[in-house]
Amino acid sequence: MNDLKITRPFDMLNSALNKQVLIMLKGNVTVRGKLKAFDVHLNIVLEDAEELENGKVKTKYIEVFLRGDTVILVTV
Amino acid sequence: MNDLKITRPFDMLNSALNKQVLIMLKGNVTVRGKLKAFDVHLNIVLEDAEELENGKVKTKYIEVFLRGDTVILVTV
Amino acid sequence: MNDLKITRPFDMLNSALNKQVLIMLKGNVTVRGKLKAFDVHLNIVLEDAEELENGKVKTKYIEVFLRGDTVILVTV
Amino acid sequence: MNDLKITRPFDMLNSALNKQVLIMLKGNVTVRGKLKAFDVHLNIVLEDAEELENGKVKTKYIEVFLRGDTVILVTV
Amino acid sequence: MNDLKITRPFDMLNSALNKQVLIMLKGNVTVRGKLKAFDVHLNIVLEDAEELENGKVKTKYIEVFLRGDTVILVTV
Amino acid sequence: MNDLKITRPFDMLNSALNKQVLIMLKGNVTVRGKLKAFDVHLNIVLEDAEELENGKVKTKYIEVFLRGDTVILVTV
Amino acid sequence: MNDLKITRPFDMLNSALNKQVLIMLKGNVTVRGKLKAFDVHLNIVLEDAEELENGKVKTKYIEVFLRGDTVILVTV
Repeated sequence: MNDLKITRPFDMLNSALNKQVLIMLKGNVTVRGKLKAFDVHLNIVLEDAEELENGKVKTKYIEVFLRGDTVILVTV
Repeated sequence: MNDLKITRPFDMLNSALNKQVLIMLKGNVTVRGKLKAFDVHLNIVLEDAEELENGKVKTKYIEVFLRGDTVILVTV
Repeated sequence: MNDLKITRPFDMLNSALNKQVLIMLKGNVTVRGKLKAFDVHLNIVLEDAEELENGKVKTKYIEVFLRGDTVILVTV
Repeated sequence: MNDLKITRPFDMLNSALNKQVLIMLKGNVTVRGKLKAFDVHLNIVLEDAEELENGKVKTKYIEVFLRGDTVILVTV
Repeated sequence: MNDLKITRPFDMLNSALNKQVLIMLKGNVTVRGKLKAFDVHLNIVLEDAEELENGKVKTKYIEVFLRGDTVILVTV
Repeated sequence: MNDLKITRPFDMLNSALNKQVLIMLKGNVTVRGKLKAFDVHLNIVLEDAEELENGKVKTKYIEVFLRGDTVILVTV
Repeated sequence: MNDLKITRPFDMLNSALNKQVLIMLKGNVTVRGKLKAFDVHLNIVLEDAEELENGKVKTKYIEVFLRGDTVILVTV
């Protein structure tokens, strides 16, 4: 039964709202933060976010809007 | 008769639900995992996934959302 | 008369169903296999397919889904 | 309750109107200025803006229109 | 009067049906062959086609489908 | 009150009609000239325009049409 | 009054029909010729055209179809 739980990709993002996610963007940018909002274009808002470079924190963002078409993957 | 089984490309992905798939993304990223969800834009959710580099596991993901327009190919 | 046989580009792919095709993808990837399915976005499913590198077989796929927007050309 | 405040990504930009924002564009361009206008394509107008290079001001703009599809991220 | 003959770009391709055309694709690929079919997306089928490299024949195709969005120019 | 003057990004371009603007295009091209026309795709016509390279005039155009999807930013 | 003559970008191309234009394409290709046809996607047909490289004629085309999404700018 568990296998049938998620049937549409965006259901995963719904479950991740207000949780920590890690996002890889095109151009080798990785951002980690609390998922506050997203839409069907994969535009995403993170809160208390950090941009990472080689695993180290490069920049901190109180709030950041990521344009959907630059997203490669989102993971919890 | 067997030859006529699949007539639309997404039928292959339907058959692969809850099975292991391997996905090549643009930018030389390969991800392997259990196919949990996809949509017509080829947005994909994998469970128990691994990002591979030169055939070796680089990162593990409990759950990962892959944006459709970064996908090159999906194989079972 | 023969010259008028094909009038829409996708007619060629219809004729190629269940036959061997060779596909060039962006990023210098070539895949060869039996054409099982395609749609108007040029999403394609091949069966018994091989990825080629410099004319040599690099990987074999029982079944592979190719995303349409990575396709450059399809030949019989 | 606070966690539910933002539910759509563009709500963050609405809250940022007439405030300082920092915008990363494709091609390694960063622009900072007062957010005067945006639309659903993420076309953006900034006032009293500065283009930054390695953290230093390279050019000043009284008013600048940024085309949405070049935007990577917007932060407050 | 002759100047007014063609008024829409695709009229030129209509006139070129069943004639030799030369096509430049993105990624420095040039293909020459008999134009058998095209659509508004500039998807094109050529017959008796040749892929050229530095003006020399690299590969021959009995029939080839070129995806429209890789086309740069078509000439007679 | 002044802060509320512009509410949609294209209002800025409307105000700039028949005035000097500077436009950055993808591929490191900068063009300066009098804004004569634009549309929602950001297709733009400039009059008495100059293409700049490292701040120096490289080419002069009596009239030039810039395709919207190559535009990065427009400034007054 | 003269300033109000052109109000939509494509009006400039209408005025340029059957006249010499110079077109910059992505990938550093420049083509010069007589403008015979265009559409809203900026697909363009030139007659008696020349492809230029560093200002010198590289190839001549009796007729050439340029795909709109490769166009950067058109000038008279």
